[in-house]
Amino acid sequence: MKNLEKLFPFWSDLDDADKKQLEETMRVEKYGKGELIHRTDTGCKGILGVLSGQIRIYILSEEGREVTLFRIHENEVCVLSASCLLDSIEFDVLIEATEDTEVQVIQTCALNQIIKLNPAIELYLYKTVTENFSDVMWTMQQILFMRIDQRIAQFLWDEMVRKNSKTLQITHDEIAKHIGSAREVVTKVLKYLAKEEVVSLSRGKIEVISKEKLHKYL
Amino acid sequence: MKNLEKLFPFWSDLDDADKKQLEETMRVEKYGKGELIHRTDTGCKGILGVLSGQIRIYILSEEGREVTLFRIHENEVCVLSASCLLDSIEFDVLIEATEDTEVQVIQTCALNQIIKLNPAIELYLYKTVTENFSDVMWTMQQILFMRIDQRIAQFLWDEMVRKNSKTLQITHDEIAKHIGSAREVVTKVLKYLAKEEVVSLSRGKIEVISKEKLHKYL
Repeated sequence: MKNLEKLFPFWSDLDDADKKQLEETMRVEKYGKGELIHRTDTGCKGILGVLSGQIRIYILSEEGREVTLFRIHENEVCVLSASCLLDSIEFDVLIEATEDTEVQVIQTCALNQIIKLNPAIELYLYKTVTENFSDVMWTMQQILFMRIDQRIAQFLWDEMVRKNSKTLQITHDEIAKHIGSAREVVTKVLKYLAKEEVVSLSRGKIEVISKEKLHKYL
Repeated sequence: MKNLEKLFPFWSDLDDADKKQLEETMRVEKYGKGELIHRTDTGCKGILGVLSGQIRIYILSEEGREVTLFRIHENEVCVLSASCLLDSIEFDVLIEATEDTEVQVIQTCALNQIIKLNPAIELYLYKTVTENFSDVMWTMQQILFMRIDQRIAQFLWDEMVRKNSKTLQITHDEIAKHIGSAREVVTKVLKYLAKEEVVSLSRGKIEVISKEKLHKYL
């Protein structure tokens, strides 16, 4: 079992009996790239600690349009999947693995009792949700106020920094989902960026050929 | 002084010394319709309890485009104006009176010490922010996924219910700001709704002439 104290910041606030109780019901789940982990309108799964990989939290329109709200990386925690513990949350999201991912799940039923006796844990959960709120505000401002070419350039830049690589294994469709746009629009902008020698394109892959030029679009 | 226990739900968690300290620094502020109350990028004002009137929380693009995130009504509390108390908030908003408004201000400096000794107050603040998050998610879904005519119809419907009146004193520009669109677009849709005999339009005023027809647009 991974270092639970490192994964779940509230772990050190628990007493030994609580820790034992949670450990007994805890489980590790594995998901392939693109697999749905949970949708909150179907119930309450629990808190997810990302052991490896990455998950994204998104919303879906009735017509099937997706908008990524934010992503959660290795050693970070997803609490929106336990929204029944937090009455102030009144919206639904979907949670998907964007890479092959392993999550440590703390089930709601086990946590429910413990939260009542540990206000520090409840506070941790609400603080984490407020961080998610900040991420969503960032996303919303991007969608509302930034030009589409700027949003795509920002996305490529962030991915390049995160992966520490100028070669990005990602499809136009995946970029469209991340930035809340359509695939056709992304393709058009990427072709433009290729013509300007900012990136080069090949099947399922984008290579940043000039960091300096890309940076001018931010 | 108004009933502080009713206005601020955490008031009953305070001891007498804390209450006295807060009361000494508390003040009532009055704002006219359309007046800016605070912008969070210029500092931290404190918690606002709305004694009368209504305030709106909005964001502003570099080009001056506004999007209303949510509104706070009489006897409700605004905590985003005290974002320095809550480290997990990492975005800025503007706060404006949408009617003649009186707010009871609890200044940050007074609250700062008290929060450290009362985790229940910190939890209350974060819970309130999470409710705001739910409101923002609602707004975001409207902007991203609903057709513009549907958004305007929904806005007119909500206003009619809230004011308990079929006559709404509101300009096209104000509607545009509330739903995050442009005035020209709102005018076009309202003219269409007038032609369909859903509403009738006159200067600074919109009258809903058929609730049944309006409801079909929701």
